[in-house]
Amino acid sequence: MKTQQGNNLSPFGNQMENILQIVIVYSIITLTLETLPDLTLGQRHFFEISEIVCVSIFSVEYLFRLFKSNNKLKFVFSFMGVIDLISILPFYLNLGSGSRALRIIRLFRIFRLLKLARYNKAISRFQQAFTSVKEELVLFFLASFFLIYLVSVGIYYFENEAQPQAFQSIVHSFWWSVVTLTTVGYGDVYPITIGGKIFTFFVLMIGVGIITIPAGLIATAMMKTRNEDK
Amino acid sequence: MKTQQGNNLSPFGNQMENILQIVIVYSIITLTLETLPDLTLGQRHFFEISEIVCVSIFSVEYLFRLFKSNNKLKFVFSFMGVIDLISILPFYLNLGSGSRALRIIRLFRIFRLLKLARYNKAISRFQQAFTSVKEELVLFFLASFFLIYLVSVGIYYFENEAQPQAFQSIVHSFWWSVVTLTTVGYGDVYPITIGGKIFTFFVLMIGVGIITIPAGLIATAMMKTRNEDK
Amino acid sequence: MKTQQGNNLSPFGNQMENILQIVIVYSIITLTLETLPDLTLGQRHFFEISEIVCVSIFSVEYLFRLFKSNNKLKFVFSFMGVIDLISILPFYLNLGSGSRALRIIRLFRIFRLLKLARYNKAISRFQQAFTSVKEELVLFFLASFFLIYLVSVGIYYFENEAQPQAFQSIVHSFWWSVVTLTTVGYGDVYPITIGGKIFTFFVLMIGVGIITIPAGLIATAMMKTRNEDK
Amino acid sequence: MKTQQGNNLSPFGNQMENILQIVIVYSIITLTLETLPDLTLGQRHFFEISEIVCVSIFSVEYLFRLFKSNNKLKFVFSFMGVIDLISILPFYLNLGSGSRALRIIRLFRIFRLLKLARYNKAISRFQQAFTSVKEELVLFFLASFFLIYLVSVGIYYFENEAQPQAFQSIVHSFWWSVVTLTTVGYGDVYPITIGGKIFTFFVLMIGVGIITIPAGLIATAMMKTRNEDK
Repeated sequence: MKTQQGNNLSPFGNQMENILQIVIVYSIITLTLETLPDLTLGQRHFFEISEIVCVSIFSVEYLFRLFKSNNKLKFVFSFMGVIDLISILPFYLNLGSGSRALRIIRLFRIFRLLKLARYNKAISRFQQAFTSVKEELVLFFLASFFLIYLVSVGIYYFENEAQPQAFQSIVHSFWWSVVTLTTVGYGDVYPITIGGKIFTFFVLMIGVGIITIPAGLIATAMMKTRNEDK
Repeated sequence: MKTQQGNNLSPFGNQMENILQIVIVYSIITLTLETLPDLTLGQRHFFEISEIVCVSIFSVEYLFRLFKSNNKLKFVFSFMGVIDLISILPFYLNLGSGSRALRIIRLFRIFRLLKLARYNKAISRFQQAFTSVKEELVLFFLASFFLIYLVSVGIYYFENEAQPQAFQSIVHSFWWSVVTLTTVGYGDVYPITIGGKIFTFFVLMIGVGIITIPAGLIATAMMKTRNEDK
Repeated sequence: MKTQQGNNLSPFGNQMENILQIVIVYSIITLTLETLPDLTLGQRHFFEISEIVCVSIFSVEYLFRLFKSNNKLKFVFSFMGVIDLISILPFYLNLGSGSRALRIIRLFRIFRLLKLARYNKAISRFQQAFTSVKEELVLFFLASFFLIYLVSVGIYYFENEAQPQAFQSIVHSFWWSVVTLTTVGYGDVYPITIGGKIFTFFVLMIGVGIITIPAGLIATAMMKTRNEDK
Repeated sequence: MKTQQGNNLSPFGNQMENILQIVIVYSIITLTLETLPDLTLGQRHFFEISEIVCVSIFSVEYLFRLFKSNNKLKFVFSFMGVIDLISILPFYLNLGSGSRALRIIRLFRIFRLLKLARYNKAISRFQQAFTSVKEELVLFFLASFFLIYLVSVGIYYFENEAQPQAFQSIVHSFWWSVVTLTTVGYGDVYPITIGGKIFTFFVLMIGVGIITIPAGLIATAMMKTRNEDK
């Protein structure tokens, strides 16, 4: 696997790897702060310059990795190779322009977070636990989707006439179903008819469990993986 | 079991079964999109024609299954036989009319989703896990119902005078109890008296767990079934 | 134990026990429906008469149990003896009057639900599971209370100045803490200051788990009890 | 460990320890009630006097502990030593003044709750369970933080234009992400665009589990620790 290989046969020394990790985190923080309103001109300049520095470092890193890899084409199309490119590309595409559409491209810099996958053992362990209950998770994802669909049809049937705006169609009813079954319950849409409330009662009694089961599955799987490690 | 039997002794080949599965999913998607407001006349026509095609396929399938089954009466009254009939009946009852009441009958086409039960192994595995903790689930369903009832009486006692509209009767208080104990909390009804708030405090401390226990039970049961399989 | 004994050495036959169970459920349903507004005079009369019948049956049952028990004083002060008395007493105290205060006493008829404990095996099994993790539950109840207290002090500190109405005192802040940590989130009170929001962020990241752990504990305990039974 | 040692080699007798514990709880209760609005002058006087008494007792306790400890400097800078000092210091700093800023310092008296850690076995058992799944908890805390960050960037992208007030920047979007992923859902901020709603749908389907997994982990860990104890 590329990730694994990147850890062991890294073309950089340990020191360098740590510095790169810090640069990634730093660039994510500036990405976040850049979106703050009411920045002074000085602050904007600072963020622009720090962005140029970060991209320069990532570009050198990309070229160095490309240069060091035996199979150059394989690297370019490998998962981490693509991520490395996506992390710097928005900057080069964006040069000199400042329109809204282009500013949104900047958000793609978030992909730099995925560069951390190269360094982070914890994430790969997380992936392992996910993989071990993958079948069950897919099953529950499907079951949840199925349930949400059925509930949407049901609530559409009960509430469409009373609240034609919020429950315009089965597609619109999806929003209520998701917000209710995950127990978020913003309160922007809720049933007002007697039928809709009784329907919601049964849906909640049966459905809430289904959506929260995957969490229990992963928790049990992680404890088991942990016991086997020891 | 009929479902099992339908899988093994299917009168159709594997190819045909797959095509039928796609038709079911396709007809569910059109059912969903049909309820969208602001459809053009062309789109409406398309949905009508695709409905006719789907029902034709399902009708042929039904007659074929009926013809192939040894005990015809048994098939008609079997679970899947009834589902097959309910899936196409609304169309024939609805021919030529367009009143609101009849449009609602169309929603019964949702029962086509249950036709998938014939094909889907995942669902039957899901049923297995449910069955293994059936007793506990019934127990908790009863306990939840019991709890919701007690909580409704309690909140009615505390809030009836202060909010005569939302807490008109014990029956009306059910809505608040369900929305609160499942932690959905829309915010359309909530206690405003000191007594009601203190009561809610204790109810939430004790009650939230009861409602979410079934999820934990199913999760543990599924992990156990899985370990036994291996 | 009285409950156990009541099951085995019941002074009534099995037939009679079943009838009594039905009467209890029936009287609870009428209690619920009685609180509905807009009842007709005829319906009110029906509920009054059915109440007289129920209380008569329960009174006869009480006297019969008292008569059949060897140690009469012990029965009167036993748990089920007290419940039996509380179930019928409000009726006798209420005779001939109709003031609001007395109508509330009627709600004490809800204690009839506890009479079912004499008959219901499921409930005693439930009690068993609770008992087996009693220590942990007490620990988490204390931890939850501790957490809610700390969170109330914290949010009072952050929000008191900005929302003097909702966060008047630490006592008033309790309401927000409970509604937030149980993830109900009605939306009647929420932090609006930056400090309060950051505080809520950390509280939710750490605290949500604590409140939901007891459910996991009971679920695991129930599965274990079940495995040991088999 | 200091806590342990404090239990075994306590300079006070058992009687005295119990009294101190009561004083701590009493002082926390008065701290809570003191923040209530509309207190009479008499009540204020009572709270002031009871505060002087409590601080006197805690001061004597502190000096006694300091006097009895072999290594005085070590005690002063030990965890419990610092807590003991923080519990009484706000009183001495506050003498004679009544400004708002100083009144907030009073809230630091909440640290007295931590003094209970010296007496309470239950808390140390709780710590044990936490420690045993520490790695996993850190992993999930990081994963949760990571997820909340990604979700904040996503919702900022979808909702920034439609709701420039609530989703001003990625930093502002954090509030929505936390309130949604923990399923609190106050309803003060929610997506209104189609894109934002679809994004929320997928986020909730995948994300809700991640945040609630730690609870399952601790529950399983506690049951395991318990079984090993027996």
